[in-house]
Amino acid sequence: MKVAVLGGTGKFGGGLAARLAEAGHEVVVGSRKAEKAEEAAAEYSESLGDAEVEGTSNADATNGADAAVLGVPPEYAAETARTVLDGYGGVVITPVVGMSRTEGDFVYAPPEEGSSAEEISTALDDETPLAGAFHNLAAGKLADLSVDIDADVAVFGDDEAKETASGLVEDVGARPLDVGGFGVAPQVEAMTPLLINVGTKNGIKDAGVRFV
Amino acid sequence: MKVAVLGGTGKFGGGLAARLAEAGHEVVVGSRKAEKAEEAAAEYSESLGDAEVEGTSNADATNGADAAVLGVPPEYAAETARTVLDGYGGVVITPVVGMSRTEGDFVYAPPEEGSSAEEISTALDDETPLAGAFHNLAAGKLADLSVDIDADVAVFGDDEAKETASGLVEDVGARPLDVGGFGVAPQVEAMTPLLINVGTKNGIKDAGVRFV
Repeated sequence: MKVAVLGGTGKFGGGLAARLAEAGHEVVVGSRKAEKAEEAAAEYSESLGDAEVEGTSNADATNGADAAVLGVPPEYAAETARTVLDGYGGVVITPVVGMSRTEGDFVYAPPEEGSSAEEISTALDDETPLAGAFHNLAAGKLADLSVDIDADVAVFGDDEAKETASGLVEDVGARPLDVGGFGVAPQVEAMTPLLINVGTKNGIKDAGVRFV
Repeated sequence: MKVAVLGGTGKFGGGLAARLAEAGHEVVVGSRKAEKAEEAAAEYSESLGDAEVEGTSNADATNGADAAVLGVPPEYAAETARTVLDGYGGVVITPVVGMSRTEGDFVYAPPEEGSSAEEISTALDDETPLAGAFHNLAAGKLADLSVDIDADVAVFGDDEAKETASGLVEDVGARPLDVGGFGVAPQVEAMTPLLINVGTKNGIKDAGVRFV
């Protein structure tokens, strides 16, 4: 499958891109500046042995892609969706979470639409399938290819997009769990700041979650 | 320690009361009707062998208690806090979560204060230490004493109350994890509907959580 990882130059996008390439996917990382994405992709490819990652602009990365992971900061998510992903022809997957800090704790800070997923959904046409996934995997763990993920990922959204997203979740070594439609987006997104608090306050590095 | 479990006649409160009694605590379950609590307590005590649970009205249950778990439905939480727990002399622990359903999925439905914990905090005087705990343990698992809990519990709130709550979490066989102050209450409360969705959609009975 051809997968575009937009905002793929950070730890999260880079780790995701590298792991998906390792699993056999054709992966293109995108960035607002094509050059930055090319550099990052070359770096990922070096660490990958046989597999390879390409890099280009966000818009070009989605050309002919079957799935696009919107790995950009929350403040750029809706704009990127509108300008790059609207009707691009594949499935969109959002791992986006808005967070802020209150008295030293990370807290969930969704946009006025109620969740980043809803904001992105509003920015896309109705024909583009959208799912939420990968929120609750730590960037540090994703980026360290020597570490097994060994955690669960909550997946929500449109059925077709959920199926694609669940396959990609399995391909990075995590267990996908269907948790419902867009109504549950705030609950899934809100788990990310909680995991950061759990990790920092209890010495759990790159905390993830297992549903037991 | 003397522990009052208010709203202790349901599966959640009953399971909690029985497990805390088993762990050696002096446990009194409360209900709006003393008679109902007495009946439930007699039933719990039968299943407990050596340990015993008492039952009485919510107000009497808190007499001399060191900790009170507010195991009542969300719509009665603030009223019960105001009338029974305000300045009662011990620590208050809230496991309260407001939920509704959207298109078949359970979703988080907090009161206008932003979380049940904030609503309860507002109903109590400033001198009563308050913590949130036990939200993410399934009632069915708590109530089946033959099952080991083997899950994590996120604990938040005032420091003194967090310490007490964490001890009680350990006493029921779960691992307490400090996740911060009241700012994180929505994130912790929101995990309960998510766990229900995870459980029903993926065949995980009485789903709980492990932070890994």
